[in-house]
Amino acid sequence: MGAVKTKRMPRAVREQQMLDAAVRTFGQRGYMAASMDEIAELAGVSKPLVYLYLNSKEDLFTACIRREAAALTAAVRAGVRRELPADRQLWEGLGAFFAHTSLNPDGWSVLHLQARTHGEPFASEAAAMRAEIVAFVTQLILAAAREAHRDPDFPESDVVGLAEALVGAAEALADWANATPGVTARQAAATLMNFAWSGLGNLMDGQPWTPPDAAHEASG
Amino acid sequence: MGAVKTKRMPRAVREQQMLDAAVRTFGQRGYMAASMDEIAELAGVSKPLVYLYLNSKEDLFTACIRREAAALTAAVRAGVRRELPADRQLWEGLGAFFAHTSLNPDGWSVLHLQARTHGEPFASEAAAMRAEIVAFVTQLILAAAREAHRDPDFPESDVVGLAEALVGAAEALADWANATPGVTARQAAATLMNFAWSGLGNLMDGQPWTPPDAAHEASG
Repeated sequence: MGAVKTKRMPRAVREQQMLDAAVRTFGQRGYMAASMDEIAELAGVSKPLVYLYLNSKEDLFTACIRREAAALTAAVRAGVRRELPADRQLWEGLGAFFAHTSLNPDGWSVLHLQARTHGEPFASEAAAMRAEIVAFVTQLILAAAREAHRDPDFPESDVVGLAEALVGAAEALADWANATPGVTARQAAATLMNFAWSGLGNLMDGQPWTPPDAAHEASG
Repeated sequence: MGAVKTKRMPRAVREQQMLDAAVRTFGQRGYMAASMDEIAELAGVSKPLVYLYLNSKEDLFTACIRREAAALTAAVRAGVRRELPADRQLWEGLGAFFAHTSLNPDGWSVLHLQARTHGEPFASEAAAMRAEIVAFVTQLILAAAREAHRDPDFPESDVVGLAEALVGAAEALADWANATPGVTARQAAATLMNFAWSGLGNLMDGQPWTPPDAAHEASG
């Protein structure tokens, strides 16, 4: 029995190997083109074993999305120390985000591209992860705004759009950094920090950009 | 013959009606789920006529992507007056972008979601449109930076990442505005202008955000 135990890997380890193979295959070839044969071969197991453990291509893809979403959100949360000033929190959060997406380009592709575009239940899984990140960023910006304005009731609705903009910019820069040779995670983080911080910082200080008035507009 | 002519619509008009119906169907139901029966019915024509004019579902989808991409880039270009100061150019460009995406939510969905995720040749069509917008925004930022620095050789590579960040933020806010009741195109434009301009403005003035140094990092 001892011999059998050492030969056989625990189910949890096998499953992780299957998910590793699946994330790589879905990320590089896309959900539709990826085949279960390919995934089983890459994982070094038989196709029936993949079905036994993970049931179907749909369930396997869902498991990939959940694992990659949990890993990304955990990486960002772990990168942020709430006791630091707001700009340092943002800098560290961005650093953690770009480090994770550059080290896991196939996982990023599964989350950002594949999961959102092959209907349900995949789109909902990806949307839930994105909503969690937007909510986290919203709270970061809200805490900074409440501190800067010395107003504990500063409305959350004033910063939701800013969080959406920041997350959208981060998504685009992750795609760009992963597709552009020579662009490092740190450069992507620094680019977004430069782009975002001075703008957010001015807003925190109550100095928004002022739209031209209608009269100027008409004569412009 | 006169009677026949007035009864029959010109081919170009019929084609535009088919494309209108196709953009709405692809945008609302997704490329895979959309059926040619549905599109023909919505356009008020027979299915064979759709095939006669536009050949196949694939060619029809490609025609939709091209038409919507051309309309969006034309709207943004028309919204920007190059003789204005950089912040006004950005404000007007963002206003034109969000006005267009809010008036054409199905076209935006075709471009931003559907086209990118159903393989080739669709992904390339969408990528070409996006690259054109990024290049346009890069030139706007570059012109502003060269003027601010009084340096006609200010390197383009320094601003490409900023253009990617700005376009990514705009994409996310267009999705958000279209999905959130009560958020207008003007609010989305103002949110992004506030977020982006002060940051870009400070960069133009040679005042980047400074990352904490390594020593501080280690002790932080």
